[in-house]
Amino acid sequence: MRVGVLGTGIVGRTLSVKLIELGHEVIMGTRDVNALLSRQEPPPWGESFPDWRARNPDVPLGTFAEAAAHAELVFHATAGVVCLEALNAAGKSNLDGKILIDVANPLDFSQGFPPFLSVVNTDSLGEQIQGAFPGARVVKTLNTVSADVMVAPQLVGGGDHHAFVSGNDAKAKEEVTSILRDWFGWTNVLDLGDITTARGTEMLLALWVRLLGVFGNGMFNLKVVT
Amino acid sequence: MRVGVLGTGIVGRTLSVKLIELGHEVIMGTRDVNALLSRQEPPPWGESFPDWRARNPDVPLGTFAEAAAHAELVFHATAGVVCLEALNAAGKSNLDGKILIDVANPLDFSQGFPPFLSVVNTDSLGEQIQGAFPGARVVKTLNTVSADVMVAPQLVGGGDHHAFVSGNDAKAKEEVTSILRDWFGWTNVLDLGDITTARGTEMLLALWVRLLGVFGNGMFNLKVVT
Repeated sequence: MRVGVLGTGIVGRTLSVKLIELGHEVIMGTRDVNALLSRQEPPPWGESFPDWRARNPDVPLGTFAEAAAHAELVFHATAGVVCLEALNAAGKSNLDGKILIDVANPLDFSQGFPPFLSVVNTDSLGEQIQGAFPGARVVKTLNTVSADVMVAPQLVGGGDHHAFVSGNDAKAKEEVTSILRDWFGWTNVLDLGDITTARGTEMLLALWVRLLGVFGNGMFNLKVVT
Repeated sequence: MRVGVLGTGIVGRTLSVKLIELGHEVIMGTRDVNALLSRQEPPPWGESFPDWRARNPDVPLGTFAEAAAHAELVFHATAGVVCLEALNAAGKSNLDGKILIDVANPLDFSQGFPPFLSVVNTDSLGEQIQGAFPGARVVKTLNTVSADVMVAPQLVGGGDHHAFVSGNDAKAKEEVTSILRDWFGWTNVLDLGDITTARGTEMLLALWVRLLGVFGNGMFNLKVVT
């Protein structure tokens, strides 16, 4: 499948590499490819782009618009605080009718660690994106786990834990659930309801960053026990 | 042990009944005992107080101050939006030096369901309580599960899930961890860190209320899988 991955942080990189391994035609999108290739400053998690690029020279790069235009399926993995700007650059017409898998979080690191959420409580990034791009079939998912766990859930507790999906389009949530299962190996995917339920999974990050502090790494997840 | 339970909603009631079963000397505290005994309006969850009282006539009642003065150990289970007022009524000197187990959440139902949080993101109820009562040994815990699960974790998945503790007093957290284990049967208690980590467990409520919607009841919890 032709997949666009918007965002070049640790999440965008990990998704792109995995999707290429799976045989998909990926373009990883960014604001300005040349600026990215020379950017020495690392993202909040992970190494600088040039250091990563040296080990991954074959991941196709493009602008946000090129990645979105190319795509049958779009992953949104930009930093939450700039995401609407990034998606506007991708272009409304390039997103219309397409499933947009939103894995981003509104983490604001401007005051240091722990980050706070730039959208919270009575709104969410997922809702803002669906509101700004009503033609896109937004499904919020995977934002509650680290990049490594997103694409390889079996690395944590043999995969015995949960991913959540939130969205207004039931068929899109079904397709995304199949993608999580067939592409990445998720066995437990829980449908929380419409896109407003993204508030719940985004606000879970306030606990997630503390568990990161307890364990010292992101190789954990939550299982819903009944 | 002499225990004060502040709050008479479903959580305060469930804790009081269980603690009495365990042989503790409980006073369940409220603002005004006579007003409570005639209050027909039910709390957000559970039945009206007089209906509950008819089945539980022997639970000792008192004012917030009487419950706190009586107590060697205090549970705080008032509605989050009024909690500082309730704790002020309990009296600073009645809380000084005592472990205050804060199981409350800042849920605001004034706009209907789902509730939003009245304190969130860069602050928490746990921190506000510790800040206002510096002499109390505040431990935030159990706020991430329903009242029934608080006192009987084995009812969900055989008890294979987590409680969290947050607080600035390491010895108090150890004592509370023993209480959770020995009194209620919790086998997995995870220390998240200082009282600011209560932001994480309080914000988890945004997911919790959605899971309540999915399952139709509160008999679930989260397990941290590594």
